[in-house]
Amino acid sequence: MTQLARRIKTTDNGLTDLFAYASNPDLISFAGGYPNDQLFPKAELQAAFSDTLATGDATLFQYTSTSGLESLRTKFAKRAEQAGVQATAANVLLTQGAQQGIDLTAKLLLNPGDGMVVEGPTYLGALSAFDAYEPTYYEAPMEDDGLDVNELQKILMTHSVKFIYTIPDFQNPTGVTMSLEKRKALVRLANQYDVIILEDTPYRDLRFSGAALPAIKSFDTEGRVIMLGSCSKILSPSLRLGWLIADEKLLKPITALKLASDVQSSNLTMRAVDRYLTDNDLDQHIQAMNTAYATKKDAMMNAIKTYFPEKIHVVNPAGGFFIFIQNVGNLDMTQFLKQTMLAENIAYVPSEHLFPVSNTKNAARLNYTNLTEKTIQLGIQKLGGQLKQHLAQTNWSTDIQLESISTN
Amino acid sequence: MTQLARRIKTTDNGLTDLFAYASNPDLISFAGGYPNDQLFPKAELQAAFSDTLATGDATLFQYTSTSGLESLRTKFAKRAEQAGVQATAANVLLTQGAQQGIDLTAKLLLNPGDGMVVEGPTYLGALSAFDAYEPTYYEAPMEDDGLDVNELQKILMTHSVKFIYTIPDFQNPTGVTMSLEKRKALVRLANQYDVIILEDTPYRDLRFSGAALPAIKSFDTEGRVIMLGSCSKILSPSLRLGWLIADEKLLKPITALKLASDVQSSNLTMRAVDRYLTDNDLDQHIQAMNTAYATKKDAMMNAIKTYFPEKIHVVNPAGGFFIFIQNVGNLDMTQFLKQTMLAENIAYVPSEHLFPVSNTKNAARLNYTNLTEKTIQLGIQKLGGQLKQHLAQTNWSTDIQLESISTN
Repeated sequence: MTQLARRIKTTDNGLTDLFAYASNPDLISFAGGYPNDQLFPKAELQAAFSDTLATGDATLFQYTSTSGLESLRTKFAKRAEQAGVQATAANVLLTQGAQQGIDLTAKLLLNPGDGMVVEGPTYLGALSAFDAYEPTYYEAPMEDDGLDVNELQKILMTHSVKFIYTIPDFQNPTGVTMSLEKRKALVRLANQYDVIILEDTPYRDLRFSGAALPAIKSFDTEGRVIMLGSCSKILSPSLRLGWLIADEKLLKPITALKLASDVQSSNLTMRAVDRYLTDNDLDQHIQAMNTAYATKKDAMMNAIKTYFPEKIHVVNPAGGFFIFIQNVGNLDMTQFLKQTMLAENIAYVPSEHLFPVSNTKNAARLNYTNLTEKTIQLGIQKLGGQLKQHLAQTNWSTDIQLESISTN
Repeated sequence: MTQLARRIKTTDNGLTDLFAYASNPDLISFAGGYPNDQLFPKAELQAAFSDTLATGDATLFQYTSTSGLESLRTKFAKRAEQAGVQATAANVLLTQGAQQGIDLTAKLLLNPGDGMVVEGPTYLGALSAFDAYEPTYYEAPMEDDGLDVNELQKILMTHSVKFIYTIPDFQNPTGVTMSLEKRKALVRLANQYDVIILEDTPYRDLRFSGAALPAIKSFDTEGRVIMLGSCSKILSPSLRLGWLIADEKLLKPITALKLASDVQSSNLTMRAVDRYLTDNDLDQHIQAMNTAYATKKDAMMNAIKTYFPEKIHVVNPAGGFFIFIQNVGNLDMTQFLKQTMLAENIAYVPSEHLFPVSNTKNAARLNYTNLTEKTIQLGIQKLGGQLKQHLAQTNWSTDIQLESISTN
């Protein structure tokens, strides 16, 4: 039978087993990553769609431009100003979620074998997108204030690299926020070594405490930062709407790639989201959401303090969807999941496949957005109990870090 | 500045000049390819969205599966039965228009340099999608009953080919429908030479006369035909909804590529289209649309008979969006457009970029879906007049073929 392209891997990412358990009603899953659907602005979105449809405008159902609805691009450009970014509609491409922005950027830059840097650990879905363009990965380790800039420089000094993928705010999976100094340092290094930065900000607005930092893009003087935004976590993932901000010289070929990939995004959806943003205060909605998520996050951190063995490294995130537990002795968290925790009806995302080079196994991602405080406490108690039991005989080295150091 | 990937071409496809004229209100454009937005089932689509939103179901706004809504996949699988194709929901992936199906199939199969066959001429947007995977193109010439199967066999005998891209029904741009014999021959050749067939059917249901032929996929016994369908021409392009039918062994890696490209399609849209199909008779709607399009097509064919020089080759299409004029003497239709017809406020798509290998220049695509009969007649009269004038001194060889031979 016909050979598939080299990019098609027949091995899976180890999560298939996990999904088989997902339908178990007794399962407490910390493995998710969905927003809480009780927090969607359902009535307002419904009104936005209804009002848009009620215009009776036949062009709603017609093709539109590949760049996307101009008034909506203007709104996202204005929103970027809150992050210190100067942009106009001409710098914005509307995408099918930020995921398409990740895919298109890789498509823009990578020939097979080309070097790129990712944070270790990083977002699994981004690795899937990059994999299709067969890059050579280099991993810059995550520290508690963002990726290790010294290690990044070492990589850039010794290897040819096309771009760096980073999630600077409440990173998936670590929850870590990159410090101001590192944001500036990243742009300096990118300029020095002629590298593009792909700044992915799906969780940026989900801040529970402290003040927002300027986007990496705000320090970009050479048009080498591509910034991605997404409606999925702040509004609704069903809209499949994200945006990509870039200088026009990069945006033009990216837009041509979008045209070739799926022609354009939905005119009706773009019009409805534009209407929502005209009629509602998105930031007010986000604030209400953050209050609810912060309570869940606090419940998880408190349970971790109470029930976890002491020396596991945990950063208290100041926002986002995830808490990451690191340096869990020498425990292989994939095996621990399969052999121990699933039988206890507890699931999480083991770290192995989130580190594309080192495949670090003694860490895991925990999500709190869809669980009640009570369930979170119960699940963490069970997980902590098993961890204590399995770690009793092992040695480990780093300290627990329970206070947030990620707010600035 | 950072080098872009090899796939990024800085040359444009020659249509940029054309778009500059598109805003001219006096322009009669035969260059379009949009459905007529007066024919969208606006009220019914509006009701389908409203009723879906009125359920108040919060999961409407949530993530869903990458494969897409199962009840909708079942409906498209059942619809494929009309074309003789046996399929269930398990064989269907919902895509962002058929364009994404084209992109994902190329992504599935092509390493840089791999051979593939396209019809000469073919759909420009498909070539854009394929270009991103850097194939080596081979061109099988279109005849009046579908691609030249003998030429195809010669290509397959002498070159390594991964897949064949074909639009068997009312092809874009020729309007030609592939005969039953050629459909069967294509599958035989694919089996013999171990090749995949990508069967793209966006115009299949837009038949104005004659009986539908079975899909190429209906003759597939080895799971090597991937069939694409689209809501864009039969319902609304703003839905950005298409479907891909394939055997599970191909569908699994294609679905993984969809996950990596844009995660999934919009849950809300899929639910609304499912509702539309439950509450309405799609075929009845298509029939009404076909009546309107057929009138416009007849107006164009009649005007061509009246006003065109005799020896231009034209096939009367039995459906679809386009009439293709071929063997226009030795006229370079790109230059003729720029130097003569745009000044006359007439536009069309010249053939040069629709033939990726031969770059045949003496042909053009004419679209009739968005023009009144009066405008069509006026535009064809002008075009015919100029063609007569410019062809007066040239010789050409083939005969005009004004009767449809594409109905079976």
